[in-house]
Amino acid sequence: MYVILVYDIGQKRVGKMLKLCRRYLHWVQNSVFEGEITEVKLKELVYEAKRIMDEDQDSLILFKNRDAKWMDKQIIGQERSPTDQFL
Amino acid sequence: MYVILVYDIGQKRVGKMLKLCRRYLHWVQNSVFEGEITEVKLKELVYEAKRIMDEDQDSLILFKNRDAKWMDKQIIGQERSPTDQFL
Repeated sequence: MYVILVYDIGQKRVGKMLKLCRRYLHWVQNSVFEGEITEVKLKELVYEAKRIMDEDQDSLILFKNRDAKWMDKQIIGQERSPTDQFL
Repeated sequence: MYVILVYDIGQKRVGKMLKLCRRYLHWVQNSVFEGEITEVKLKELVYEAKRIMDEDQDSLILFKNRDAKWMDKQIIGQERSPTDQFL
């Protein structure tokens, strides 16, 4: 499946979260990631994220698409990320 | 169509951009918005965004879905936004 992940996380935990997300997805911009991922790998990512997060303060949102083909991406201005996973 | 909008914009322009995006979409978290929008309204939003942006420095990304039903949203930790547009 194709996911877009956005987080809003306390300064102290942000480095760990960035590192974790980079292991599973492609960095897009700021605290935004995207990529193709399996259900199992996504569960792993969420499990690890929860261990980093303070769930009373931090927020992590996943937008899941069954397939990237249902989605279209438009970039205005600078493209922060060098990779583009869209066909 | 259903869009997720994320921006990364210079401090000086961020207030204007936030205000603009709020007029068209629902705020989700930080610099992330989502919502149902028509093609015409989206063009209007992009046009206005370009007037605010410094396209050599700023970045705006739109993920467009034909329909929200192709997308599933999962929130871990805190929900920053009080509205949920998903069925």
